[in-house]
Amino acid sequence: MLDPQFLVPATAAILSPAGRVARMLRFEAALAEAQAETGLIPERAARAIAAAAAEGIDTAAVLEAAGAAGNPAIPLVKALGAKLPPEAAPFLHYAATSQDVIDSAVMLQLADCWAAMRIDLDALAAALVDLVQGHRRTVMAGRTLGQQAMPITFGHKAAMWLDAVLRARTRLRTMPAECLMVQYGGAVGTQAGLDPRAEAIVAALARRLGLGVPSVPWHGARDRLVDAASRFALLIGTLGKIAADIALLMQTEIGEAQEAEAGGSSAMPHKRNPVRPLIALAASKAAPGLMATLYGAMAQEHERGLGGWHAEWTALPALVGMAHGALAGMAKTARSLRVDPDAMARNLAATRGLLSAEALAQALAPALGKLAAHAHVEALCRRAVTESRDLKSLAAADPLAAKHLAPAALEAAFDPAQRLGRSEAMIDRVLAEAKRTRDHDG
Amino acid sequence: MLDPQFLVPATAAILSPAGRVARMLRFEAALAEAQAETGLIPERAARAIAAAAAEGIDTAAVLEAAGAAGNPAIPLVKALGAKLPPEAAPFLHYAATSQDVIDSAVMLQLADCWAAMRIDLDALAAALVDLVQGHRRTVMAGRTLGQQAMPITFGHKAAMWLDAVLRARTRLRTMPAECLMVQYGGAVGTQAGLDPRAEAIVAALARRLGLGVPSVPWHGARDRLVDAASRFALLIGTLGKIAADIALLMQTEIGEAQEAEAGGSSAMPHKRNPVRPLIALAASKAAPGLMATLYGAMAQEHERGLGGWHAEWTALPALVGMAHGALAGMAKTARSLRVDPDAMARNLAATRGLLSAEALAQALAPALGKLAAHAHVEALCRRAVTESRDLKSLAAADPLAAKHLAPAALEAAFDPAQRLGRSEAMIDRVLAEAKRTRDHDG
Amino acid sequence: MLDPQFLVPATAAILSPAGRVARMLRFEAALAEAQAETGLIPERAARAIAAAAAEGIDTAAVLEAAGAAGNPAIPLVKALGAKLPPEAAPFLHYAATSQDVIDSAVMLQLADCWAAMRIDLDALAAALVDLVQGHRRTVMAGRTLGQQAMPITFGHKAAMWLDAVLRARTRLRTMPAECLMVQYGGAVGTQAGLDPRAEAIVAALARRLGLGVPSVPWHGARDRLVDAASRFALLIGTLGKIAADIALLMQTEIGEAQEAEAGGSSAMPHKRNPVRPLIALAASKAAPGLMATLYGAMAQEHERGLGGWHAEWTALPALVGMAHGALAGMAKTARSLRVDPDAMARNLAATRGLLSAEALAQALAPALGKLAAHAHVEALCRRAVTESRDLKSLAAADPLAAKHLAPAALEAAFDPAQRLGRSEAMIDRVLAEAKRTRDHDG
Amino acid sequence: MLDPQFLVPATAAILSPAGRVARMLRFEAALAEAQAETGLIPERAARAIAAAAAEGIDTAAVLEAAGAAGNPAIPLVKALGAKLPPEAAPFLHYAATSQDVIDSAVMLQLADCWAAMRIDLDALAAALVDLVQGHRRTVMAGRTLGQQAMPITFGHKAAMWLDAVLRARTRLRTMPAECLMVQYGGAVGTQAGLDPRAEAIVAALARRLGLGVPSVPWHGARDRLVDAASRFALLIGTLGKIAADIALLMQTEIGEAQEAEAGGSSAMPHKRNPVRPLIALAASKAAPGLMATLYGAMAQEHERGLGGWHAEWTALPALVGMAHGALAGMAKTARSLRVDPDAMARNLAATRGLLSAEALAQALAPALGKLAAHAHVEALCRRAVTESRDLKSLAAADPLAAKHLAPAALEAAFDPAQRLGRSEAMIDRVLAEAKRTRDHDG
Repeated sequence: MLDPQFLVPATAAILSPAGRVARMLRFEAALAEAQAETGLIPERAARAIAAAAAEGIDTAAVLEAAGAAGNPAIPLVKALGAKLPPEAAPFLHYAATSQDVIDSAVMLQLADCWAAMRIDLDALAAALVDLVQGHRRTVMAGRTLGQQAMPITFGHKAAMWLDAVLRARTRLRTMPAECLMVQYGGAVGTQAGLDPRAEAIVAALARRLGLGVPSVPWHGARDRLVDAASRFALLIGTLGKIAADIALLMQTEIGEAQEAEAGGSSAMPHKRNPVRPLIALAASKAAPGLMATLYGAMAQEHERGLGGWHAEWTALPALVGMAHGALAGMAKTARSLRVDPDAMARNLAATRGLLSAEALAQALAPALGKLAAHAHVEALCRRAVTESRDLKSLAAADPLAAKHLAPAALEAAFDPAQRLGRSEAMIDRVLAEAKRTRDHDG
Repeated sequence: MLDPQFLVPATAAILSPAGRVARMLRFEAALAEAQAETGLIPERAARAIAAAAAEGIDTAAVLEAAGAAGNPAIPLVKALGAKLPPEAAPFLHYAATSQDVIDSAVMLQLADCWAAMRIDLDALAAALVDLVQGHRRTVMAGRTLGQQAMPITFGHKAAMWLDAVLRARTRLRTMPAECLMVQYGGAVGTQAGLDPRAEAIVAALARRLGLGVPSVPWHGARDRLVDAASRFALLIGTLGKIAADIALLMQTEIGEAQEAEAGGSSAMPHKRNPVRPLIALAASKAAPGLMATLYGAMAQEHERGLGGWHAEWTALPALVGMAHGALAGMAKTARSLRVDPDAMARNLAATRGLLSAEALAQALAPALGKLAAHAHVEALCRRAVTESRDLKSLAAADPLAAKHLAPAALEAAFDPAQRLGRSEAMIDRVLAEAKRTRDHDG
Repeated sequence: MLDPQFLVPATAAILSPAGRVARMLRFEAALAEAQAETGLIPERAARAIAAAAAEGIDTAAVLEAAGAAGNPAIPLVKALGAKLPPEAAPFLHYAATSQDVIDSAVMLQLADCWAAMRIDLDALAAALVDLVQGHRRTVMAGRTLGQQAMPITFGHKAAMWLDAVLRARTRLRTMPAECLMVQYGGAVGTQAGLDPRAEAIVAALARRLGLGVPSVPWHGARDRLVDAASRFALLIGTLGKIAADIALLMQTEIGEAQEAEAGGSSAMPHKRNPVRPLIALAASKAAPGLMATLYGAMAQEHERGLGGWHAEWTALPALVGMAHGALAGMAKTARSLRVDPDAMARNLAATRGLLSAEALAQALAPALGKLAAHAHVEALCRRAVTESRDLKSLAAADPLAAKHLAPAALEAAFDPAQRLGRSEAMIDRVLAEAKRTRDHDG
Repeated sequence: MLDPQFLVPATAAILSPAGRVARMLRFEAALAEAQAETGLIPERAARAIAAAAAEGIDTAAVLEAAGAAGNPAIPLVKALGAKLPPEAAPFLHYAATSQDVIDSAVMLQLADCWAAMRIDLDALAAALVDLVQGHRRTVMAGRTLGQQAMPITFGHKAAMWLDAVLRARTRLRTMPAECLMVQYGGAVGTQAGLDPRAEAIVAALARRLGLGVPSVPWHGARDRLVDAASRFALLIGTLGKIAADIALLMQTEIGEAQEAEAGGSSAMPHKRNPVRPLIALAASKAAPGLMATLYGAMAQEHERGLGGWHAEWTALPALVGMAHGALAGMAKTARSLRVDPDAMARNLAATRGLLSAEALAQALAPALGKLAAHAHVEALCRRAVTESRDLKSLAAADPLAAKHLAPAALEAAFDPAQRLGRSEAMIDRVLAEAKRTRDHDG
């Protein structure tokens, strides 16, 4: 039901009901192979099961039947079983329950989505590195509560974005080891009917699926699943922040940045719609509700929950799908962003020097005392506003300022580039962190 | 991405991206016809547009192109225009904007879904009427915080369900008039370029689509859309309540109700999984997050929002789709529910008369005084618990009780059927309300 | 735990735990009086109970004891009972349960909050009426996706705000009749122990509390409570929309509106922080999650829920409290908003006539044909952008345009005031609706 | 506005607006000391500031003034400054902005809350260890979808709880290092006006506050704050799961567990209300919405957000406060839980052997073949249900079963204790993990 415009085809396919069925088949094959490997079921049965699973089943029919059965595992096992020779059939889905195959398939979906997203996340990080480096001295207005406050550089702003993107990447990179565990417990999580091979089977199954081995099955402990989801949601939140900033910079009256391929309009040739940031913004408004569903589904009753488990199936794919859609869009946006330093300088000058009032007061403080300097500058500011004049020229013509400030000092107070604090050192830290990330997890 | 098991095919089709495109075509046809009707565009152009819209377009291509365009309206107009004769093309989507066609299509989706759901809602109400009537004197335990508290009847419990279902029905029945308004404002909501026919065009357009006419376009005022959504969410909440109660009654140890076609298990023949209530329970856990998205998307910037508008597209269809899935499931569950009065009586007796302690104390109060009666009964209760005996036989053997209570009075205190308060009068009220509803909006 | 800056003292007091206890006392008094009125309990006992309730109890002690008891009703009844003469004590909280007194107190909180908010809602509507009337012809840029699109008037924008505010008002005005029902059912909702007076008692109790009478108690049917909450949330959503627009208009580079008493900064004299809109914006980001909690709490088990009921107590007061905080702030903001028509005109001119491109093409269409006219204007637009020139002067100097357009027609195409469509008629409709509201519910 | 019954006094105080103001004072003192340490401001000024901060200010007045100022930092600095000698005043809040002091104070609140909660989390883990060890062989019904499915042990169930609690503990233990960073950037995050001491000052400030040093200030990057919040929410989710299970086990008809100090009722002596689990259940229903608010607030505009930042202030304290309330409640519940093995055995027997059907079929499979064995047992099950007889006695009397199964084998099939799979090994793993946790982070 999700508009394809919010998604990336690769992950949309992984996360679709059909994509889940495909991974359920992978589970059944791997389970049979793991059980054969440990001698629990015949090798031949395992081969037949794996072959049938590889061949696939009528996915639409399985999904249709899921309604009456309560979940897609029951019809899937039936459909797969119907393809097996009689001697293999009893060993299909052996000592497994619906939740084993569904939960493990969800883990595989998350692993596969992360694998598919990684390249886009690296591309976004690389594009941001370029923006940071290219604009480390591009001065612009820093804005708080929508108001110009003090100068920053675009590189500094982008470094804050990049720093958050790197954290999102770390959270997702560590997600498989910390969150993606195989689920295999049988009807109630005890692994009954496998003794004494249970431990070896679980290990082999996890190895074949590329998932971790939990101390106990997690049918009633959903925290790792929600923890994993939160990592995607935090990525979305960061992308939403970047998108919001870019969309604000793209406003007609501000015009400091442009999407290279912004959505146009033949009727309104001046329009440059922030089409791709919209995907991230939409995702950032949808993700909180989806996370609410997942947290709200954690209190699952006893050994299988009434509705909570099922609610995960609607929320998690939507969340992860939108995460990739938002990511792919912002990677393209970042790569092609046209930053307009002239517009930034023009906007910074729009307040006619008022952004330098604080610097002027600081420059006068040694001579006048802090409070008197402040009061004097405030009076100059009021004149600048009421007379629509430039604070710098007012200051230059002011006897008191002229007396205490050398022309170079006056110039410095009104030069945003000299008021950027530790921006460059911060930028260097973030770039070093980006390099470390690239080198180590390449 | 939503599992079909949570949906009903009819509304799933309406709510799908393709279903929205179909309704966008209806809008374009109706707009052209309304504009021709008022003389703004040539009749012939309107006929050509309506014919092309009726024929349909390549929906998949339109949805695919929506990504780059920012929304599906732009490619839809292009695809539809390509099918028109040159003289009609300029009159397609005339003086309209993307939001006009998309928002109006969403309104049509809601109207069509409600029409599709109505029969199921009536079926649920009818089934509940039967349950209320059939069990108005079926005594069972009322339970608070999971603990048996005092006797009720199953009819009384079902009457509370029915009463809430009737309210949900009223909210949805009044939804079209109160919430479903046509959207038509042009680029920024002023209906520029239509003077002096604008008012007549909007009226004709709304009439053709079966939607209401707002005082001003609502591109920036989303409250009616969220109000409509809330009506579906309140229905889901009520269905979730009914489903939760039924699932609890179906617990193995309680066994007071059964879904006639409960999900079974060949391996575990005693299992009666509440398969259909699960759909409502899952929906009731997903709806809150989806509503959060919709409320959170209300602050849409200026004349079209950045992401908020787009977030509606992912949340609203999922919500409404799950509402119908939950409703259809609960209608079937209610229709086929097997209530087990014997199990209810057995459970009610499980506390060995303790549920009657309060009644016994009340019966003794006239003779002993309220406080003394209470203390005396409390002592009997403690004996009943520690000695694992029945409170009624303890009371019968108690000299004080024997002295002050005639056998019939003792019997009455321990007869749940005599302690049901105003249950039947309440039941009659709710049934009368159900009848009124049926007669008036049939 | 809520910062007082988001609240209004009057409603904060109503909604506090102490404010709830005060309304629980009102319930106990009204219940005794209703029971005496119908002859169930002695008049004298009712008078004693009402007197003790009016005197108040040690609220802090009751709230402290609520932890161990599970809810504040149990310690409240105990504390109140301790103040009664022995002959009145047995008649306190007679045939009532904790949920009766707590739910009814919550209803009273909602009723009292709405009464306290009404004056602010009317003030907001009145201030918006003034803005609409005062700026019905103040031209400004309409903006979609952050981009200037076509001209509107500030009156038109404010009319859309006002229209939504009037709807929010209607929803709240009808809330008491539709949602605020007394709760009185006894232990499990059957009103056991009151026969045959139950109906009369409920009616008298509801009348004394100013609440409605439900067909059945609603301990397990929370839809009316959530419906009521949604009306506050929809108000918040509308306030958030208005606040977002104002904050965007207040951006340094846009400067089209100003809060008269905007938050300043001595260090940064140019700053005009949108302090009061921030309250509405914060509320509009908090309300969705609080509504999610309320929808998510609807599936309350049997005759009293496990946690769902209790979750209402944390979410509902926060929601309603923030609604009033946001409302009071926006009423002040609207009343004191300084609109800057010059800045609006300046920004509208910032695209050097590109906003008129569509009008110019329409003016040329009769002579050149629609497509040729469009192509010609597009070429002019491109020149305007690349040569940084004004489209109007380019058009004036263009031979083709000069040939086909009289100077007045050219002027008209570039005059935003002539391209406002049906704005004034829409404004009149909304103003009429506001007048109707004022006259009828004054 | 939060009922105190959901909170723990210690964290309620930390998280209250007053508790935040106290930590804002700690920040101002530490900032001055760090600036003096690096030679930026006079030692004497720092001492005066620290002394004034230690003395405290009129918190209520500061909170009251926050409304007009937009946040409590501005009035706090004013109030604190009024207490300083003239020569120290200019160095208060030097080169700092409101967000620096507020965000850092929030970090301190989280750090202090975690410190206050740790003992309760360890107590909960210890109580669960005892339950796991004490009941590693206490057989009970495993239940899926509310239906008895197969036997488990209570120790196995509690081990899954414990495993999740240990993960929640690890997430909170690593929270300070991963999430709790000092905020100090000045007006727009550049640390302007501190050169060349900026880096040393930030390091000293962080050290004094016990917070981490970020690469760049995080005023616009909220992911670490939401990540931290999620760790509390995941704890709540796990506590909600445990509480849900216990409340279900406490149902009158099940009676397998009891809170030692369950809430009673004098009128209804049999009631054992799960009072403390209710706190965790309420929290688990409120936390999802609060998390939605926090995720939804992440897209904060530019260098300070419009409402998003402010929404954190209402959601985060409520979340963390309820986390401790739920934790403290569940620690007490776990410590005093009375498990009733007899009730567990009785309930397990309630299906008259049907839970052993699968085991019986497996026992017959070698002789009859899997499918035939299954069909035969299914027929026996149907008879058991329709004739209300015990499956075991039916099997004992069944000629086919008698022929192929030795009495000991029949006995084994019906002995739940022999069908517990790898439960004990899993339990040992979780206990070892608990021990490791205790030994290493004690």
